[in-house]
Amino acid sequence: MTITITAFERSPDGGKGLARDTRVRWALEEVGQPYEVRPVSFRAMKEPAHRALHPFGSIPTYEEGDLTLFETGAIVFHIAERHAGLLSDDANARARAVTWMFAALNTVEPPILELANAKLLESDKPWNKERLPLVENRVRDRLKPLSAHLGDADWLDGAFSAGDLMTVSVLLRLKSSGILDEYPNLAAYVARGEARPAYERAFAAQLAFNTGKPPTG
Amino acid sequence: MTITITAFERSPDGGKGLARDTRVRWALEEVGQPYEVRPVSFRAMKEPAHRALHPFGSIPTYEEGDLTLFETGAIVFHIAERHAGLLSDDANARARAVTWMFAALNTVEPPILELANAKLLESDKPWNKERLPLVENRVRDRLKPLSAHLGDADWLDGAFSAGDLMTVSVLLRLKSSGILDEYPNLAAYVARGEARPAYERAFAAQLAFNTGKPPTG
Repeated sequence: MTITITAFERSPDGGKGLARDTRVRWALEEVGQPYEVRPVSFRAMKEPAHRALHPFGSIPTYEEGDLTLFETGAIVFHIAERHAGLLSDDANARARAVTWMFAALNTVEPPILELANAKLLESDKPWNKERLPLVENRVRDRLKPLSAHLGDADWLDGAFSAGDLMTVSVLLRLKSSGILDEYPNLAAYVARGEARPAYERAFAAQLAFNTGKPPTG
Repeated sequence: MTITITAFERSPDGGKGLARDTRVRWALEEVGQPYEVRPVSFRAMKEPAHRALHPFGSIPTYEEGDLTLFETGAIVFHIAERHAGLLSDDANARARAVTWMFAALNTVEPPILELANAKLLESDKPWNKERLPLVENRVRDRLKPLSAHLGDADWLDGAFSAGDLMTVSVLLRLKSSGILDEYPNLAAYVARGEARPAYERAFAAQLAFNTGKPPTG
């Protein structure tokens, strides 16, 4: 059955790979599943036809036969559950990988989203300069224990898993902030994720999609 | 095998049910699994013994035989996957319920957490009064499409599921803000969740735990 995902017609980041379709592309590349991408404009995203697929009017969505999903975490989990490559066969290791998926999205990412809001939506506010360090410290409150847990391991819990895919994806949003570099083992962890051939293919595909040029690799 | 979860020795909310162990208690009550609760003080939470269970030094954790999990979403999913009552037998309905779990935690809850931060951590800041309406509007940006999707249905996707458990739990955090009442169908949805016998048992148990009195029911 053909897998079709949606992506921004033109990503606001211009192809830096931070739009959430990259997370889904990466998962599909890790498990070796081909997929098609349907672009959605910002206008079409808010219309009923797309809202029927994604109640919050965003991307990505995932269509496969009579199944339609939205929400990146759920899509990546669905892919990981049905194809080998992102979850262990051992039940306990699998549950721990799922734990890291949820931790990435509900513990690590919320302060990162708050920081993004402060930079994108409040940059013109008189309080922004004084407030930004407070928000950055909320991010550090998550990175410090994450860094301590990772230590000098390659991945969060043994072999690379969907939990690492999601954690690396979340941390990638911090690259331009400089905060990630305060935790050298986390910066190296993210670099390890980016060096995976599956990530490289996913990144190249979203870049080509956003710039209208085919990958050269 | 005995299931043991951790909870705040005394919840900061004094037993209003907003600490995350309530979500896990509710899930365990829905599937009819007994459990034990180990209290953790704020001091012990940050020490190595607890960090070994929960890298971010918080609650709840979940122990069952040789499996240890943290992160509420993952714990609730683990419970839902292993016991009947929170996920459909139909694979597609199950994937959609998981979608709502992730949507609750990564789309609906982040602006609610941002609002909580504004109220708890920035109440003494000179910008807080002017900034609060901006943050409240970010919450509304999520509630409006959620309300539109729910319409006059009882639950988000057919029968009650782990997706509803998590969405109701996230929305409960808004009760004191008044924002929930702007969306009568969401307020009724939350009330439906609270009226479930399993929720009532979970709420009574955490209240008794936090006030040191046994449930009177």
